[in-house]
Amino acid sequence: MFSGFNTMERKKITIVGVGLIGGSLALQLNEKGMAAGIIGVESNAEHAAKALELGLIDEILPLEEAIAQSEAIVLAIPVDKMITILPKVLDRVNHQIVFDAGSTKSQLVNVVAGHPKRGRYVATHPMWGTEYSGPEAAVKSAFENKAVVICNAGESDADAVEWVRQVYRKIGMHLLEMEAVAHDLHAAYVSHISHITSFALANTVLEKEREDQAIFELASAGFESTVRLAKSNPAMWVPIFMQNRDNVLDVLNEHITQLRKFKSCLEKENYEYLQELIENANKIRRILG
Amino acid sequence: MFSGFNTMERKKITIVGVGLIGGSLALQLNEKGMAAGIIGVESNAEHAAKALELGLIDEILPLEEAIAQSEAIVLAIPVDKMITILPKVLDRVNHQIVFDAGSTKSQLVNVVAGHPKRGRYVATHPMWGTEYSGPEAAVKSAFENKAVVICNAGESDADAVEWVRQVYRKIGMHLLEMEAVAHDLHAAYVSHISHITSFALANTVLEKEREDQAIFELASAGFESTVRLAKSNPAMWVPIFMQNRDNVLDVLNEHITQLRKFKSCLEKENYEYLQELIENANKIRRILG
Repeated sequence: MFSGFNTMERKKITIVGVGLIGGSLALQLNEKGMAAGIIGVESNAEHAAKALELGLIDEILPLEEAIAQSEAIVLAIPVDKMITILPKVLDRVNHQIVFDAGSTKSQLVNVVAGHPKRGRYVATHPMWGTEYSGPEAAVKSAFENKAVVICNAGESDADAVEWVRQVYRKIGMHLLEMEAVAHDLHAAYVSHISHITSFALANTVLEKEREDQAIFELASAGFESTVRLAKSNPAMWVPIFMQNRDNVLDVLNEHITQLRKFKSCLEKENYEYLQELIENANKIRRILG
Repeated sequence: MFSGFNTMERKKITIVGVGLIGGSLALQLNEKGMAAGIIGVESNAEHAAKALELGLIDEILPLEEAIAQSEAIVLAIPVDKMITILPKVLDRVNHQIVFDAGSTKSQLVNVVAGHPKRGRYVATHPMWGTEYSGPEAAVKSAFENKAVVICNAGESDADAVEWVRQVYRKIGMHLLEMEAVAHDLHAAYVSHISHITSFALANTVLEKEREDQAIFELASAGFESTVRLAKSNPAMWVPIFMQNRDNVLDVLNEHITQLRKFKSCLEKENYEYLQELIENANKIRRILG
């Protein structure tokens, strides 16, 4: 290894929320030698005990104590909680670096825009997750080869941004930088709408198919891949849809319009247009390979 | 191996359509020692040459000759072609066993219902596929641990059904039997609607997201899994939607209704109901695990 990252000083790190994201991040921080100890802050007692048992974290402390004892603090909690916790964390921060892993960014950067310690905070969204949640869902090699978006980097102190960049590089993520508003728009297209379609597809099948056994036995790989996101946790997703409401509504309206085109083709038996719609959809190959 | 399958006599088999499904089936028939030679029938000259080059088949012959030289014939072509080819195949069949791998079954069993050789034909749907097509898309271990539906088995000769069952068992598939009408209904829920939502999602994103690069860089695993089916071949899918029009329309209408519920929650900021919708969708866990 020739990179300067190896000389990166280990920091004592607090992870607020040791679930899927926080727990997976803990595994990476330990494995890549970036942590001089990890403190967990966790309101769910069962999750706290499990995270300790799994060795994801070294100890559980109350938030204030954890901040006082750390050099870096990561927030990995639902985005509604983030809005209230982040300003409180910054209130208590001195030299520490703070970053978050939330799926929406605009409201979060707005809520701390005027905070005297705004510079210590770096807004990030590592674009990785699974449909599972809690510390037991944490996996090694999470985040690797995925994109991470750093938002409004200009509002953060240079040393804070640089350290956070190094952390994500060391985990093996591709760094992207954009404004929070642009992030939330793109996230609605490439992530949030997929979850809505998957939730709605699950509800469709549960409504129409009264024979569970038939779904269970017949479900193809195609069905599983389109519906697996429907297992995702509402405590995470309702706040995301709330915070990104306008963008999500905009994409959802377009999606319903697109589905109505398929419906109209079938109703009118216009199979030439149906063919065109599918050929157009095939263009996603140029992007996804 | 203690099963009687090993004593299964090898048959000379014709595969009509050596694409993804026919090619993958050829790999399995060879690997599991069920074929005493495989003849391909293929209208696409490029596919024919490629299937020979890849060793999926031993030779390419015109349909009539292939039938005359075979003991079993498999049809693995789009379901609109199936409707016209199957009766012609049965016209030429004597002792041979014929089965198909089509995704819709009602129209197909209807079209040969009164055929004097109906007994030689077994209607099947192995529930496996990928979003790719052509002989190069053929993969080893295809079909394994997936379900195969045998329809209207009572209309087939006992020896024909038994042999086809043995073939699918040897490939490692779970056998299910049902009437063609029930199959098409269930297939609309667990397969066809997933493809429509995926095509429509691709069109949504291609319509709204003008920055290809943003999709490319940001696309998460979740997005890829919900949209990958949108790469599927229209030559295969338009005929499926045509033949299963009523069931697909019924499920599609329900799906649009379900999406409208999400839309209404967001518009009215009714996040309690949004939570309920997601919790309901989570019930898909009890089926998919």
